[in-house]
Amino acid sequence: MPEAPPRGFPPEEFAGRLARAQVRMAAAGLDALLLTTEPEVRYFSGFLTQFWESPTRPWFLLVPAAGKPVAVIPAIGAECMARSWIEDIRSWASPNPADEGVSLLAEAVRELVGPAPRIGLPKGPETHLRQPLGDFERLQAALPEARWGDDAGIMRALRMVKSEAEIAKIAHVCDIVSGVFEDLPNFVQAGMTEAAVFRRFKIACLEAGADDVRYLVGGAAPGGVGDIISPPRDRPLAEGDVLMLDTGAVFDGYFCDFDRNYALGAVDASADHAYRTAFEATEAGFAAARPGATAADVFHAMADVIARAGGGDGGVGRMGHGLGMQLTEWPSNAAWDETVLEPGMVLTLEPGLAIGPGRVMVHEENLVIREDGPRYLTRRAPETMPRIGR
Amino acid sequence: MPEAPPRGFPPEEFAGRLARAQVRMAAAGLDALLLTTEPEVRYFSGFLTQFWESPTRPWFLLVPAAGKPVAVIPAIGAECMARSWIEDIRSWASPNPADEGVSLLAEAVRELVGPAPRIGLPKGPETHLRQPLGDFERLQAALPEARWGDDAGIMRALRMVKSEAEIAKIAHVCDIVSGVFEDLPNFVQAGMTEAAVFRRFKIACLEAGADDVRYLVGGAAPGGVGDIISPPRDRPLAEGDVLMLDTGAVFDGYFCDFDRNYALGAVDASADHAYRTAFEATEAGFAAARPGATAADVFHAMADVIARAGGGDGGVGRMGHGLGMQLTEWPSNAAWDETVLEPGMVLTLEPGLAIGPGRVMVHEENLVIREDGPRYLTRRAPETMPRIGR
Repeated sequence: MPEAPPRGFPPEEFAGRLARAQVRMAAAGLDALLLTTEPEVRYFSGFLTQFWESPTRPWFLLVPAAGKPVAVIPAIGAECMARSWIEDIRSWASPNPADEGVSLLAEAVRELVGPAPRIGLPKGPETHLRQPLGDFERLQAALPEARWGDDAGIMRALRMVKSEAEIAKIAHVCDIVSGVFEDLPNFVQAGMTEAAVFRRFKIACLEAGADDVRYLVGGAAPGGVGDIISPPRDRPLAEGDVLMLDTGAVFDGYFCDFDRNYALGAVDASADHAYRTAFEATEAGFAAARPGATAADVFHAMADVIARAGGGDGGVGRMGHGLGMQLTEWPSNAAWDETVLEPGMVLTLEPGLAIGPGRVMVHEENLVIREDGPRYLTRRAPETMPRIGR
Repeated sequence: MPEAPPRGFPPEEFAGRLARAQVRMAAAGLDALLLTTEPEVRYFSGFLTQFWESPTRPWFLLVPAAGKPVAVIPAIGAECMARSWIEDIRSWASPNPADEGVSLLAEAVRELVGPAPRIGLPKGPETHLRQPLGDFERLQAALPEARWGDDAGIMRALRMVKSEAEIAKIAHVCDIVSGVFEDLPNFVQAGMTEAAVFRRFKIACLEAGADDVRYLVGGAAPGGVGDIISPPRDRPLAEGDVLMLDTGAVFDGYFCDFDRNYALGAVDASADHAYRTAFEATEAGFAAARPGATAADVFHAMADVIARAGGGDGGVGRMGHGLGMQLTEWPSNAAWDETVLEPGMVLTLEPGLAIGPGRVMVHEENLVIREDGPRYLTRRAPETMPRIGR
């Protein structure tokens, strides 16, 4: 296994995140942020547990305009949270549908920022409220003078730019999975079912040091795959197939997100041609991914290569995105996204094009933006489609 | 590997779910249900993909008072959805923050149920709205005459009672993981770190036929563990430890959720005593889990055994729950939950008690309620705590 970076973060990491948030909160006139989702709570606390897989209990983190965040959480999580950077932890015996943390949370709000605060919630693209809607209505009723608005894009702005410690975690899982992809022709052969390939791939990632393989999609089909989000089928891989695997494996709560394509023996020349186009589009996207450029610039650099080669859109709606605590994050490499790239942003480049009717070719790499340009976090895919079984 | 039940469901399964929903919708005066989360959308469509791991795109399923559900989804999922039972699929190029499906969804609502429908949303315990709150506000503004209420508990009532095909999937993953737990003393030894044990356990589940191990928590500590939701540490297992692993592995989108405890050599007698109490509490909970009894009855049966043994609550807030498409579902085996048990409900029994200060013992089994009483889906834990290394 490659040597792993340390798990967790020093307290200074969280202090820095909080300070940056509070500067932005002051500018936006917000008295508190109310956070409810796993990455939002983890961002300010370091609270890392798979317990979020259970939808039963809501979890809350209040970030006040001054002072440290306050956790309002089910009692079952109090000991785990107590090992985090958070000091003020308030808990209730959950589940309790009659009052699922609502009055405890309202009380904490009043105590921290008074009865009439301006509260920011992440309400924009790629967010949601992880609390029953009925409870949110009760919370609003319990704080009748509070004003509830969006978070002024603060969570997005903060989370888009990663720290060195965050980048090290993403780089580590990219490195692990790069090795698994390079080794794949040694453990995948024609005749294995897609399901068997998926299983073997996940085991290889775990053996190589990934904590989990939260996301694995793809498949194999003659000359290229059509649908790129389905679970594996029991169809055996056959000569002439293109095999595509796209994975989001995790180390210490941070994702990679990239794919690789393989030819089973001789494939239709259109697939090799599309592979080459996607490879070149990635090169163009990489060259464009410099500080000061926009996510739209990166998109256009890739889209231009594909258009010149006569290819169409792969149906994905964009050509890459941010990643980190989640498989996909802001920004989007899309014509409409004018987000200016900054050092510390971690992005995928994900050009896709149609190979032929119902067949697409998608490449994906992960990179970090540095002062002087991008650096790949993944080990670059081969220039020509690798072969299995020849 | 045990022989697997067929993947997916026949169309009749979905037709039955829809018919039962529409009977309840008529009784509640609802013109449509609006569903946004993975299990809700999958329940009526069979749409199964790990793509939900990406928070970027919202997905919608409209269930009208009459006729089949309509999917309003990102274009990237249209091909996968087209292989499902759903026929009417409307899609947009997503992501598109300027209009993330909102106008397409509003148009579908107007077309299906008119401009002034009564729309039910899951708003109660254990639910959330998986759409940006800002977009939900825009959707409400786009349908100014619509009335938005809760779903009258319809999703909860339907999903709590599983079909034979659903039970077969849960039973299968319970069987797989039961075998892995029984084999565990053959692949875990003192000296392995918690992290290594977790890794090896996940690999064993995959090798035995689980699709994924979405949830694995627990750990090891002298005489019993304290915190039961944390990720694994790098501490090596040592003589005198109690090792607890609690897992939610998945087959075809259905979970098991149970744990096992192991003693590394000789452990403090208090741990063996607590194990025995938890075992007996499980027996009592099982005996109580009959059609017509309530979830509260099952709780009290277990809590009484623990109270007689002088044990306190393990901090979990309940002693078991439903499971299925999610790791935890309604009902809760808790004093406040008067849900009447019916044939087809799948539950965990999860008695927990304090062993001593900061140490808890939790047992967990999975069962299905049948006409004549409960049946275990897990292979019952041993009566006395199994040993590793003796």
